[in-house]
Amino acid sequence: MLTLIYLIAITAEAMTGALAAGRRNMDIFGVAVIAFLTALGGGTVRDIVLGRFPIGWTQHPEYIYLVLGAGLIAIPLARHIQRLTPLFLFLDALGLVAFTVIGCDVALGMGYATPVVVMAGMITGIAGGVMRDVLCNRVPVVFRQELYASVSLVVAFAFILMVKLGVPQEVGIFTSFFVGVVLRMVALRWQLGLPVFSWQGAQH
Amino acid sequence: MLTLIYLIAITAEAMTGALAAGRRNMDIFGVAVIAFLTALGGGTVRDIVLGRFPIGWTQHPEYIYLVLGAGLIAIPLARHIQRLTPLFLFLDALGLVAFTVIGCDVALGMGYATPVVVMAGMITGIAGGVMRDVLCNRVPVVFRQELYASVSLVVAFAFILMVKLGVPQEVGIFTSFFVGVVLRMVALRWQLGLPVFSWQGAQH
Amino acid sequence: MLTLIYLIAITAEAMTGALAAGRRNMDIFGVAVIAFLTALGGGTVRDIVLGRFPIGWTQHPEYIYLVLGAGLIAIPLARHIQRLTPLFLFLDALGLVAFTVIGCDVALGMGYATPVVVMAGMITGIAGGVMRDVLCNRVPVVFRQELYASVSLVVAFAFILMVKLGVPQEVGIFTSFFVGVVLRMVALRWQLGLPVFSWQGAQH
Repeated sequence: MLTLIYLIAITAEAMTGALAAGRRNMDIFGVAVIAFLTALGGGTVRDIVLGRFPIGWTQHPEYIYLVLGAGLIAIPLARHIQRLTPLFLFLDALGLVAFTVIGCDVALGMGYATPVVVMAGMITGIAGGVMRDVLCNRVPVVFRQELYASVSLVVAFAFILMVKLGVPQEVGIFTSFFVGVVLRMVALRWQLGLPVFSWQGAQH
Repeated sequence: MLTLIYLIAITAEAMTGALAAGRRNMDIFGVAVIAFLTALGGGTVRDIVLGRFPIGWTQHPEYIYLVLGAGLIAIPLARHIQRLTPLFLFLDALGLVAFTVIGCDVALGMGYATPVVVMAGMITGIAGGVMRDVLCNRVPVVFRQELYASVSLVVAFAFILMVKLGVPQEVGIFTSFFVGVVLRMVALRWQLGLPVFSWQGAQH
Repeated sequence: MLTLIYLIAITAEAMTGALAAGRRNMDIFGVAVIAFLTALGGGTVRDIVLGRFPIGWTQHPEYIYLVLGAGLIAIPLARHIQRLTPLFLFLDALGLVAFTVIGCDVALGMGYATPVVVMAGMITGIAGGVMRDVLCNRVPVVFRQELYASVSLVVAFAFILMVKLGVPQEVGIFTSFFVGVVLRMVALRWQLGLPVFSWQGAQH
């Protein structure tokens, strides 16, 4: 179940990466790279930071084909993807939660301390989008948007709490999804965001 | 002693990271991420490049709390931090030297060759600031400022030389701090910098 | 033979990195860093992604001296390098192929699946240039230029195919160079590029 959602999520993320690359007039190779990093970059950074080798996707070549295919197919479909924005926002929310839960699960399995587990979940959830934005040369939107990273944070805490409490894993996963997706949808609907820190002081 | 200076340093670096994030109007999550990377990013890159797992801060959750706390507390204190600029420049110089010495020490302990040890020290000293600037979408100031990376380089050479000469470690550390902090302060006072390479040739 | 071409390649890449840094008015330290990353950054990323520690250049301090020297010597020679652009484009093509072949070879030796081997070759070939461009704060040209990454891709496929077919390694390497350099030169001569994906849709 989690695997199925994960596959849907990396497909959707690869497509959003492809559209971002298209806005920068990249060629199809650039589109493929950005699609790949958006979808699998978060898990890559997590595995490196946790010292978990070999890295996940290197053992699953089928993931590579899936995200590259999704990125390239997004090119002719760009107009339609645009029209399906609400669907993609929903899939993206699913993906954010799936990535976060998987990241926490990996770090828990390696015996890391709780704050590291939270960070592993958040890195998995959002680092791909950060890489996409850095390579497209803009300030990462995840740092400026409606609740996004915060959703990942809440999901990570909820999931870890339930694991520590001994809640059956299926219940933990389901609850995490319910909380995360609802929170993200509510944030999008009413444009909820974290307070912004605007500071105009001179640089020293 | 080195640990105490290290803790002061990561606190100060986290705060400068928070201010940089504030200049880009990031939300408080973005502030926390930039604070974390500015303070602990250099050590993270060093550990990855040296193949040293698990990465340092994953074994010290208290460092995570410290830098996140420092970054967030910088938000209400921004005005005062601005006024305390000379203090922060001093703390930053301390941190640069502390990071460099620690980085060299780690690489020496793993048996790497001297140029790799120098690079490990410099990576620890400056990579955090580079990550901060890349994520804030500007050319890293460390490549353009008064002597900064050069201070790290001089400190690394001095520390390694003293280790190779068999100087007691306390003396080596103290001398490194003295040389490094004085050099940095002199560079700031008289705006000393490395020669700049300005090249307007066409791109090929 | 491959080693000799590799040494020429990292020298040439270091010089192109230095010129890019000069266009951003970096000081000589910045020039050294960009030269280093352009030349050795691709291999570094490859080794990290493949979980191959210690990283290659940490065991070859002479490579460090070579690329730093090449980067710094490029400063007084900038005018002449500009005039030698055709030579540098040729050396750069050699380097692209050498990096790609070496990257594939490393991943094959570690037993990775074919798509991972292809990616290891391409990462080695192009990640250094991507890092150079990100640090110089521009959209990586490799995503927008004439066939460049595509050359790396074709070379990787050709090399792997020949290895799988049991072709003697010397023949495989020679053929890869022939195909790769000719393809790159043809692409430059007639400005061949991949189709570009330009997408002006609103961001969601």
